Amino acid sequence: MTINIIGLGLIGGSLGLALRKTGQVTRLIGSDKNPQHAARALELGLVDEIMETEKAIQVSDLIATCVPVNSLSRLLPQLLEQIKDNQTIIDVGSTKGPVVDAIAGHPMRSRFVATHPMAGTEYSGPDAAVDGLFEGKGCVFCDTQDSAPDALETVQQLFHAMGMRLTEMESHNHDLHVAYVSHISHIASFALALTVLEKEKAEERIFELAGGGFSSTVRLAKSSPDTWIPIFEQNRDNVLDVLDEFINTVSRFRTLLIKRDFDTFSELIGKANDIRRIIK
Amino acid sequence: MTINIIGLGLIGGSLGLALRKTGQVTRLIGSDKNPQHAARALELGLVDEIMETEKAIQVSDLIATCVPVNSLSRLLPQLLEQIKDNQTIIDVGSTKGPVVDAIAGHPMRSRFVATHPMAGTEYSGPDAAVDGLFEGKGCVFCDTQDSAPDALETVQQLFHAMGMRLTEMESHNHDLHVAYVSHISHIASFALALTVLEKEKAEERIFELAGGGFSSTVRLAKSSPDTWIPIFEQNRDNVLDVLDEFINTVSRFRTLLIKRDFDTFSELIGKANDIRRIIK
Repeated sequence: MTINIIGLGLIGGSLGLALRKTGQVTRLIGSDKNPQHAARALELGLVDEIMETEKAIQVSDLIATCVPVNSLSRLLPQLLEQIKDNQTIIDVGSTKGPVVDAIAGHPMRSRFVATHPMAGTEYSGPDAAVDGLFEGKGCVFCDTQDSAPDALETVQQLFHAMGMRLTEMESHNHDLHVAYVSHISHIASFALALTVLEKEKAEERIFELAGGGFSSTVRLAKSSPDTWIPIFEQNRDNVLDVLDEFINTVSRFRTLLIKRDFDTFSELIGKANDIRRIIK
Repeated sequence: MTINIIGLGLIGGSLGLALRKTGQVTRLIGSDKNPQHAARALELGLVDEIMETEKAIQVSDLIATCVPVNSLSRLLPQLLEQIKDNQTIIDVGSTKGPVVDAIAGHPMRSRFVATHPMAGTEYSGPDAAVDGLFEGKGCVFCDTQDSAPDALETVQQLFHAMGMRLTEMESHNHDLHVAYVSHISHIASFALALTVLEKEKAEERIFELAGGGFSSTVRLAKSSPDTWIPIFEQNRDNVLDVLDEFINTVSRFRTLLIKRDFDTFSELIGKANDIRRIIK
């Protein structure tokens, strides 16, 4: 199988490494509008060769778009114009609603498979590519009834071979749930970093006092705005919904501290501890 | 040197393992008012023997109190009544002001050394003890001018041998700074867990959608109320101070989303990314 990866950053690059390991890829072509990223990805061995998107898609069985979600809504309709019905396109974005809406009713819609591998790190660019990033992680397939069975099967079989747990979800429902779990985590972490940087003008103190706990909670605050602003733009309403709940919860802690109601505070921590049942 | 560790949980147990590795401890005595914890600590080899506190302190050169900070404010004055001036007591608590205030002016005050190793995990009890927990971490010594030089030297030399980076801080100043860095991280994480559990009534969804990012941000939410309520009680005013800043920052993100002001949102993420300079 010949695969073209468009966008050779953290996800695209890691996908190259993972796909090669499945043993099912005979040719791995990378494309990136940033020539430095393309050259670096080739140097790191994330793909076998670099080609312009226009040419690469002509020779590829599978085209994996790994670009920010705002670019994707523009790119995807163009790609669908250029492929034949024995080719398949996937995305790997964190929001799905605006993407599938952008191609709804397109004659080639069924050649697109919407995937969201629940994997990533706080870094970006080809140097951030990680071998084994997807192993043991979940992957959500959205609106599978809108994809051709052969296209869906090809992709699910590949992702299964990459060691992922496959699940399915309706795309707008997916966006709601990722806001609830993933997107709010990023906002909490960005806010924590800004708060600590604001309060601790003497940055040396942060270094001295940062245990593993702070590092872990603030890790996502290193994430790039280039990735996350398009996600917050596309998923604004769902993010606002969960953000209100988050603000209410933090404000409740504030009220309990003001009232010195440590019994209720303790109960809330006990409830928060329930996350242990889900996240080991 | 004979050392008595009072409180054989995560920190006390890990301290036992670390102290033994320094090669400077001839006898390691554990005490815990919970007999199950004491038995388990002995079984795990965290200490060499178990003894009641009253007896253990009589034969120990160094007494390390590793109990929740509210118990410590009661325990410490009692211990100072019972020791001689060739013995040393340390604590390892996350708040310092109320503890040093509780023993201010005590005739044996100089035998106490206030330490805060910036190390821990979200787990508790003897089974949570970790070999190597303190290696490469920071340790803050508070109000060192109030400790006898020989007591201070003994402890600093031991903690240095455990691989820690030693720094000094005034105790109330310490409490302010740990609120700014450590305590607020815990509240952010507790609030995130509660928010996600509230919004995601179908808990299976959390499991499916939780990538490494969510797990990392929510990790501290597994921390025990038994440890954290006393810390929030003792450090209430400082925690309220930084909590207000955190709420303001999260609310600012909310306002920017409502206004669709993604340029300013992007600038703020860029500023939050500055945490990279401090936390690798």
